[in-house]
Parts: sequence; C-alpha cells; structure tokens
Amino acid sequence: MSSVRIVLVNTSHPGNIGGVARAMKNMGCRDLCLVAPARFPDKEADWRAAGASGILESARVVGSLDEAIADCQLVIGTSARGRRIPWPVLDPRRCAERALQARARDEQVAIVFGREDRGLTNEELQACNLHLHVPTHEDYTSLNLAMAVQIVVYELRMLELEGQLPEREDEDWDAPFSTAENMERFYEHLEQTLVEIDFLDPAAPRQLMARLRRLYSRVRLDEMELNILRGILTETQNSIRKQ
Amino acid sequence: MSSVRIVLVNTSHPGNIGGVARAMKNMGCRDLCLVAPARFPDKEADWRAAGASGILESARVVGSLDEAIADCQLVIGTSARGRRIPWPVLDPRRCAERALQARARDEQVAIVFGREDRGLTNEELQACNLHLHVPTHEDYTSLNLAMAVQIVVYELRMLELEGQLPEREDEDWDAPFSTAENMERFYEHLEQTLVEIDFLDPAAPRQLMARLRRLYSRVRLDEMELNILRGILTETQNSIRKQ
Repeated sequence: MSSVRIVLVNTSHPGNIGGVARAMKNMGCRDLCLVAPARFPDKEADWRAAGASGILESARVVGSLDEAIADCQLVIGTSARGRRIPWPVLDPRRCAERALQARARDEQVAIVFGREDRGLTNEELQACNLHLHVPTHEDYTSLNLAMAVQIVVYELRMLELEGQLPEREDEDWDAPFSTAENMERFYEHLEQTLVEIDFLDPAAPRQLMARLRRLYSRVRLDEMELNILRGILTETQNSIRKQ
Repeated sequence: MSSVRIVLVNTSHPGNIGGVARAMKNMGCRDLCLVAPARFPDKEADWRAAGASGILESARVVGSLDEAIADCQLVIGTSARGRRIPWPVLDPRRCAERALQARARDEQVAIVFGREDRGLTNEELQACNLHLHVPTHEDYTSLNLAMAVQIVVYELRMLELEGQLPEREDEDWDAPFSTAENMERFYEHLEQTLVEIDFLDPAAPRQLMARLRRLYSRVRLDEMELNILRGILTETQNSIRKQ
C-alpha cells in the first residue's frame, strides 16, 4: 500500500498539503503527487507535516492530472454525489479493496483528490476508473481535504493489517490493464475517428465523449482489448480516406 | 451515533478543537465535551470548525474527566501502545461496534481523546472500560488529534450506514451497567477498605489500585454486581470497626 499514489489537484492551502503528508506517513503511505498546487513548497506545509516532511521533499509536482496518472492502470477519483452523468460510486472501504487488489497484481494505482472548494471537474472524473465518495452526513458534507485523505489511507492500512483481500472476478485476468496514458491516446483516436465519420460535430460535441469515456473507464480495458479497439478505429479511418 | 460523546482532555491548540467539531459534524456526531482546554472559546477554533460552529457553541466545558464521563456506562479511551500495565486494545472499527452496541441498549457512551503531546495519563486510562488504538504505521505514530477523531467518527458512521451490528454475548443482560460516577465511588470505597484492613499502605501504594481498576473497568460491572461488591466492602468495614 505504500506504493498507492495520492494525487492532489490544484490544492489552494499549503497547510492542507502538509496535513495530507502527515496523514499518509501515519498510515505508511509515501507516494505523493501534486498537480499545479497554488503554493509549494511552503512553510505552512512543512509546519503541518510535522515529522512527515520527507513525504513533501520526495513529492512530485506536475502540471496536469494526465501527467500524474499516465503510468496508472487503476485511477480512483474522489467525488461528491450528484454528478450530471451518474457513475458507480464506492465508499472508502470498497475503494481500499479495489486499490490493494490492483497492487497485488502489480498495477500502479492512484487515488485523486480535488480542489478544496470545488473538488474534481467532470472532465477529471472521467479520467478515473472508479469514483470514491466519503459518506458524510447530509447536514454537512464539506470534508476537509486532509481529513478525506486520512480516512482513505486509514482504510488502506486497516485492510493491509487484516492481511486478506476479498476475491475478485478478474483475479486471473490474462492481459495487463491499460494505463491512463494509453487510454488518453485511445480517446483521442476515437474522437478523431468519430469526427471523420461525421458522427461527432466538433462545433456541438454535447456529452458524447463524456459518455464514451465513462463507458471505457468504468470497464477498465486491458491492453489486448485496447489494441482491438484501436485497430477498428484505424481500419475505419483507412476505409474513409480511400473514398 | 449522534449521541456518542466525544471528550477532549486538556487540548492545547484551539485549531484542533475546531477541526474536531468539523470532523464530528461531517459524520453526524454532535455531543462534544471539553475537559479544561487551554484556550476556548477561540477564534482559531471557530475558523477551523468552518460550518460546524454549532458544535462548538453547544460544547460542554468541564474541569475534570470524571465530570465529563460521570453519567456514562461505557467509556473508551484512546491510547498509544506500550502501557506499563497492558490492557485489551481495540482498533477503531471494533470500538465503533462496541459503542453502537451500547447505544442500542440506551447506554451513554463516551470516547475520550488525550493531549496532543502526551495523550491520556495512566490514571485517566484506568477510568475507561476499553482502550482504543488507531493502527498507525510504526515509522510514524504521531497522529493529529482531529485526524484521530475523524477516523473514529467515520467508523461510527460507516457502521450506522451498514445498519447491522454484530451480536454480543451480553445482548440480553439483566441489569444496567454502572456509570463512571458510581464506579468512582466504588473505587474510593474499595481503597478505603483496603487501607483499613492493612492490605494497602497509603505511603507505598504501588500499582495495586491501578490493577484493581483495570480489572473492574475491563469487566464492566452492572449495577447489581456493583451493589454486591459495595455490600461486601461495607460489611468488611463493619467487622473491623467492631473489634
């Protein structure tokens, strides 16, 4: 579990980054990636990290979520409820199970947390395979960022201490699952092809790509399936261009 | 679970009190009791509480732990490992089960959190029926106070959402369990009697009372059992005084 990556997107308050580092170290988690933080490094982050400043020192800072998750086969995004396009939403315990099942298969896993005030955008959530929701009380759902991370890494640690993972249907899968980077290339290819066959109007794209991303992210494509789909797209393009 | 009491002992940083209030409200928990906080009320507490200032306004401030838990039949104290006298220690999930089982029997329950730097004293821990330990990683065990509360109230909420409590052997107990206040009276009576029968030397008490407190706190005496023990003590005293 120490290798489950925690990704923070556009964090405003450096104190929260420090709080996250401390929460991670408390639970034996080390891999922190910051996507375009407002202020970092920062004294307030160091102060809140207390004895966990090593996590901050080794944190990777990147410019986009795509960079942060490029090498990941399983990406879990935190979400408030009530998105326009509904997704399957898991609680922290179920997410910890999925994350450690993937780690047991040597897959790279990221859990992504959004901005303090607005969370993750719909587009960012569509880059995720699963959505995570911390079941706050309906009277007050505004959970501090570091608290949310604390709950998630605590669940990872509890599961690791229990030492047993529930079984999964895809335990003995015969091909590795795709990375987020390869999925992005596929989506670009798909979009381009849909434009070429006049199914998608770039001037009025509506929710088409969002719905297709949800479909393929949710199912988690393996590399073989991805190659088949890419092959279909390429042949479709070839057929059109010959005309 | 909204009626499980959270007790903070001698909190130094008002920001932590605010963080606790927010964590509680996030999980639908309301009853906060502060034992001799260093600074309260305080602007920093209000700021960190964000939308949970109502919890701070209704918080009860008392002078001693005894006052905070006087009416409680189940008291759970948070503890680091490695006490001089070992106790049975439960993780947050198991503690949430015990707490909600007790609430289902209409018992008053308190979960007690110690000082930021030193936790609870041995004496304070002996006033508790159960000890709770958050299973932090051995490399870094220093958990922020508000984070510890967040994990515990999260477990209470998860359990409540699941809607099912595991069964207990004492489900159909035939007498109510003793309150902390009545237990304190019993310990005073016991100590006095042990001195009178020359078993306990007030000048060199050693760990005797600590071990007896552990015994009776751990077993959770019911009111009938407590009355029997008190009766034995009274009769013992009467016998000696007659001589």
